[in-house]
Amino acid sequence: MLMCKRGESRMKELINQLLPTILQKEKIAKIENDYLLIGDRRAIPFKNNYVKCSTIDEIAKALKEMVTQGGGPLQVGLTTLNFVAQQIEKGKMDDSINTFIKAVHTLVQARPTNTTMARSLYKVIDRLSMHYQCSLIATVNDVDLVTFVNQIVTELEQSFNDDYLKMGEYGNSLIEDGFSILTTCFAEHSFILSLVKAQKEGKRVEIYLNETRPYFQGSRLTAFALEELGIDFHIIGDSTGSNLMNLGKIDCYMTAADLVTMDGYVVNKVGTLANAISCAYYSIPYYAFAMSPDSTKESKDEIVMEIREGKEFLSWKNEPITKQTYPAYYPSFDIIEPSLVDLIITPKGPLKPKQIRNNYL
Amino acid sequence: MLMCKRGESRMKELINQLLPTILQKEKIAKIENDYLLIGDRRAIPFKNNYVKCSTIDEIAKALKEMVTQGGGPLQVGLTTLNFVAQQIEKGKMDDSINTFIKAVHTLVQARPTNTTMARSLYKVIDRLSMHYQCSLIATVNDVDLVTFVNQIVTELEQSFNDDYLKMGEYGNSLIEDGFSILTTCFAEHSFILSLVKAQKEGKRVEIYLNETRPYFQGSRLTAFALEELGIDFHIIGDSTGSNLMNLGKIDCYMTAADLVTMDGYVVNKVGTLANAISCAYYSIPYYAFAMSPDSTKESKDEIVMEIREGKEFLSWKNEPITKQTYPAYYPSFDIIEPSLVDLIITPKGPLKPKQIRNNYL
Repeated sequence: MLMCKRGESRMKELINQLLPTILQKEKIAKIENDYLLIGDRRAIPFKNNYVKCSTIDEIAKALKEMVTQGGGPLQVGLTTLNFVAQQIEKGKMDDSINTFIKAVHTLVQARPTNTTMARSLYKVIDRLSMHYQCSLIATVNDVDLVTFVNQIVTELEQSFNDDYLKMGEYGNSLIEDGFSILTTCFAEHSFILSLVKAQKEGKRVEIYLNETRPYFQGSRLTAFALEELGIDFHIIGDSTGSNLMNLGKIDCYMTAADLVTMDGYVVNKVGTLANAISCAYYSIPYYAFAMSPDSTKESKDEIVMEIREGKEFLSWKNEPITKQTYPAYYPSFDIIEPSLVDLIITPKGPLKPKQIRNNYL
Repeated sequence: MLMCKRGESRMKELINQLLPTILQKEKIAKIENDYLLIGDRRAIPFKNNYVKCSTIDEIAKALKEMVTQGGGPLQVGLTTLNFVAQQIEKGKMDDSINTFIKAVHTLVQARPTNTTMARSLYKVIDRLSMHYQCSLIATVNDVDLVTFVNQIVTELEQSFNDDYLKMGEYGNSLIEDGFSILTTCFAEHSFILSLVKAQKEGKRVEIYLNETRPYFQGSRLTAFALEELGIDFHIIGDSTGSNLMNLGKIDCYMTAADLVTMDGYVVNKVGTLANAISCAYYSIPYYAFAMSPDSTKESKDEIVMEIREGKEFLSWKNEPITKQTYPAYYPSFDIIEPSLVDLIITPKGPLKPKQIRNNYL
């Protein structure tokens, strides 16, 4: 069931050689003594800080406050399970499946729309739960709790890395030499690996990236990653994509997907819908990377939509943009209907939205 | 030819009673001694500053640097003609039509896409030119140069005010009780007057306004104007309009137009195209206010497109958003094709794009 250590470290080395620093596992989350440290993406590209958390509530607060985002919470969640196991072993948390369940519940509520973290963490809970029900972990597995949890988490991470590499290959197969690619927010592993693989094959690409208000994940995170990889990019305003499409400058639009439903709806950062509609208008393909379509969500009515505080649009760092009392409305995510999506790039291959159910239910 | 003083001041009083402070003529530009003062919209809503200019180059620089924008440069341009006349009378500039022509050329180059200012100022030049060709102003008109220029300018301003009021009435006729209206940037007089007239008739409206990166004209100027008028509004991200349309929350989209060509292309702030395409997708009407379709522009190929410095997207005030060396691309304006525009609201009435040529050529 558990993979051999040598295989793990080879794969880890490989993916770390390909990924920019910002996406390397230890830059997203790591444990040091009694702290879980989360790489503070809000400080990128200027500083390489970590936010120190000593409780689950502090970790949840950090996720809510966008210390990390996108696929970051998944890695934070997995690291949190290791953190909880360590705290239990040290006698600082109760040795009970409920300690894990409560931790996962708290994290999941912090960012409700993207369900990959939730589903992954509950998978770990299921396995832990069986063992807690039978007897003490140590007896069943002949390893301590920390080692046991770490093995399950490592296995999951390994499986994600395999998926990222596959999806990167599928993404690469859709990119032609000379392509100008529009993207929104920070599309992370699969998108970045697609570009890296394209680059390795000598394809020249240039990226137009939405700055991504109000946290500027595009201007800061995507730009920083592409700079490190030596891939050409241009930062643009969030509503400038259509202008470029109209000039014939965009060959395809690629984004991550925070959620994909069984009937092929794609959920991603607000702003994605506007670009997807414009892509349809100009006959430009839109590809969304989805590591894990959600088999518990039949369609869009079951999506839990995160509405964030409008005031996040009213200042940048400590500099007010306008009066702080002005009303603002900030839906974090768009729901993009299947007819607007050309392909959803999954670990099972690039699928048409209507093919999702058969592959994932 | 010149309107009577009493009529002028009555109309000015009326339009000033309707308009929010920010749009009142003296808040846009005024002359004090040897200075032309431009209301600094970059400081709104926090401060009510003016930028002091003593030369034409300084005025052009202020326009380029977005001290005022949208319809602001038109008022600055007209006030500049009065300023030039005063400077000539004081012996500080040459008494020649070339002094006026050079001033107008300099201002026009500062913001090339919106041609209303250019065409209005050249109209004044034409009239001044005739008189300079014949003889000295004083001889022909029995008034001094300052009075003569002021009369021409006042007449033009009067005619614009008449147009604004008419367009406000046409705009109002398209607004129903309970409407949610999406807008981009600061659509100024005609749009604001439409809302004021709707409000006076007891229609309830709420405005969703794009914050409008990188200068936040929406969050700062439109919000400030609507606050003063007591009209409900919500600030949203520039690419959030489609999200609201998808939820059925938008009844119509209304913007200004920096330029309208004879075949019905609309030029407006970048971001307008994305919303216009989404409006077409969701069957929501898009209305553009255009005081002065440009009869010298047959079609889009003749538009002079302003490409601003990408670095304007890289910081807010003195707070860097990301590395200042990152490449960014900032086309200021979108070109929206006629099929995406339901009505262009002109002083001659709300026209379909294909009706522009017959009405304006």
